[in-house]
Amino acid sequence: MRHHEFLSRLAQPAEGKIVLLVIDGVGDLRSAEQPATALEAARLPNLDALASRSTLGRLVPVLQGVTPGSGPGHLALFGYDPTLPETDFGRGILEALGLSMEVLPGDVTARGNFASADAQGRLTDRRAGRIPSAEGHRVCAKLGRALAGFENPRFEVTPGEAYRFVLLLRGEGLSAAIADTDPQKLGVPPLEPKALEPEAEPTVEALRRAIGRMEEAIADEPQANRVLLRGFSRLPKLPSLEDLYRLRCGAFAGYPLYRGVAAACGMEVVPCGKRIGEIVSSVRESWERFDFFFLHVKQTDQAGEDGDLAAKVEVLEEVDAALPSLLELGPRAIAITGDHSTPAPMKSHSWHPVPLLLHSDRCFVDGAGEFTEAAATSGQLGTIRSSELMGLLLANAGRLAKFGA
Amino acid sequence: MRHHEFLSRLAQPAEGKIVLLVIDGVGDLRSAEQPATALEAARLPNLDALASRSTLGRLVPVLQGVTPGSGPGHLALFGYDPTLPETDFGRGILEALGLSMEVLPGDVTARGNFASADAQGRLTDRRAGRIPSAEGHRVCAKLGRALAGFENPRFEVTPGEAYRFVLLLRGEGLSAAIADTDPQKLGVPPLEPKALEPEAEPTVEALRRAIGRMEEAIADEPQANRVLLRGFSRLPKLPSLEDLYRLRCGAFAGYPLYRGVAAACGMEVVPCGKRIGEIVSSVRESWERFDFFFLHVKQTDQAGEDGDLAAKVEVLEEVDAALPSLLELGPRAIAITGDHSTPAPMKSHSWHPVPLLLHSDRCFVDGAGEFTEAAATSGQLGTIRSSELMGLLLANAGRLAKFGA
Repeated sequence: MRHHEFLSRLAQPAEGKIVLLVIDGVGDLRSAEQPATALEAARLPNLDALASRSTLGRLVPVLQGVTPGSGPGHLALFGYDPTLPETDFGRGILEALGLSMEVLPGDVTARGNFASADAQGRLTDRRAGRIPSAEGHRVCAKLGRALAGFENPRFEVTPGEAYRFVLLLRGEGLSAAIADTDPQKLGVPPLEPKALEPEAEPTVEALRRAIGRMEEAIADEPQANRVLLRGFSRLPKLPSLEDLYRLRCGAFAGYPLYRGVAAACGMEVVPCGKRIGEIVSSVRESWERFDFFFLHVKQTDQAGEDGDLAAKVEVLEEVDAALPSLLELGPRAIAITGDHSTPAPMKSHSWHPVPLLLHSDRCFVDGAGEFTEAAATSGQLGTIRSSELMGLLLANAGRLAKFGA
Repeated sequence: MRHHEFLSRLAQPAEGKIVLLVIDGVGDLRSAEQPATALEAARLPNLDALASRSTLGRLVPVLQGVTPGSGPGHLALFGYDPTLPETDFGRGILEALGLSMEVLPGDVTARGNFASADAQGRLTDRRAGRIPSAEGHRVCAKLGRALAGFENPRFEVTPGEAYRFVLLLRGEGLSAAIADTDPQKLGVPPLEPKALEPEAEPTVEALRRAIGRMEEAIADEPQANRVLLRGFSRLPKLPSLEDLYRLRCGAFAGYPLYRGVAAACGMEVVPCGKRIGEIVSSVRESWERFDFFFLHVKQTDQAGEDGDLAAKVEVLEEVDAALPSLLELGPRAIAITGDHSTPAPMKSHSWHPVPLLLHSDRCFVDGAGEFTEAAATSGQLGTIRSSELMGLLLANAGRLAKFGA
């Protein structure tokens, strides 16, 4: 039985509210070039005080050594095993979620590139000379008009950065089992869309007509005169957190990708700002409506990606300042952690375990007095998989029944 | 999906070289009779210095409480889950590898015992009075001559210690699904070889003729006048480390069993001496040829098996002295650990977790300042399975792509 299915059978209704505060990329490195991590370097009086009443530990997002993207990193925090094929988010879906598109179950999405071809239709540039975003937006509008007449499926084009866009198909009986049309080389025309299973034939048929119409509409473009489609995919079919654990879940995230992943797990996405102060205000306003609150702080990850330790420290101190007003709401259980580490010296996500703080009136009080990677290493929670956190949160909130008599 | 298959999908080519230095049986016990472990008792200035720039942890070779043989211990270090049936090395294969025999895919091997029987053919001693090795060699030569005429399969007899030998079959369409011929008791004749699946019938047929010919040839021996065969097996079909992770792997081990296991994982076995100094010299000469270097130091395990703490300490100090010239080669990631513990007070392999040191420019610097069992217990790597080490080595060498977007 899947881990989440086992937990689901034990889930019981209760009053206690759960807060999961994700500080994106919070984990950091101590190394020759950086003698203190962001958590060590920051002044965090409120987190320190909370740590002294809490239990610490560490999360391995996926597997030892595996660096997760944000999708698997969050799915794991929500209690799903990200190594299971059914939790795999395709490229098209991630791109669509990242662009804040509304994707419904049944929709098919693909990531699109504008490309350039010569008079014979042979590709000369698979990225259309990396046209600027404004150009991409302009040509996307042409595509949108060209596809306006289609019904079942309907098509929607949303511009991304530069030469990128997302194509969304919405209709009855669609399949995403379609091969990429990008031949991955120059001097040949784009590939025809091809069904990877018989059920995909009708979708491919519609797609062929749509591609024809799109390329007609942009044939006179000097650069962006072809479209290449990759990563056909749909929302993974995940059982919702509400169905699994009887939790009404609210997602408070300022950036689209995280809202998208939360929505795919059945959370209600609540509009909110991008900074932790604004996010906590939104949580306060919705406190009665939900049992589970997912709060997402993005700027730590951005600072880590920039290699900017000082900026990461600053965001942590901003989170620390907002902490008292979050705790005032009185969650029965609160976890503070990240979806992965983004060490400033690496300027990227990494595989290093993520520090975790868990507080409830049933947690073992470590008495560490600080929330750092090193303190987390010797915490009572030990080093566990991110997907194991949900069970601990439910237990600490009194929401898991005893197993067996 | 298997752990190694999951990692394999993320493997990417990179320049960074990986060194895995296995100090066989390195882990030891602190107990009433032995107040300091070998690592604690030894003077290891170079290891201490490396530890102060590294991250520590511990490896559980198989499962908590399970004492591994050298086969599973090493397979786990190479990233295979030793509890999976497909990684199981049969008795015959291990014995053959241990005797430095060349075993090819498709070959079938069995472990042989000389035994004694009375005039009626009833076993009187299943070990032929534990004849000395010289006697064993002499009688094995008779077997070899008796089997010289066979073709498809051909048979090869290699003497082991005392009354033991290995029988190897090489030919087309062989099967190892054959029951032992050792009845495990006296007063009865040896069992006829028996096919455990229909496909094994031709192999059993050939084997019957071969056993008849062998027993004819030794009928006049006073003690070693029967052969008992056990553990029919072939090389496990493991995907090679090169196929899995795009690593050209070199094995630098002075003893046959370890070379055999490495070869079964697709490593190239490089001739080298038995002491760490010689091994490091061979590594230096081959530095450009490989991405992954497996170095095996045997003498710590031998000392542990002898209960000789002083000898174990001495070997550790020898390893320490060789360490600078190994580090000089500039591996991107290096792990120093063992395939299992061989505590001197136990005079045998044991189940105790094995200390692990990992160094790269991306490791979290614990700042422990020494490499001991106790320091390893509070290290940032935590206590993980041996089979999880490979993912960490690949990650630290920049050889694993991000999982998901």
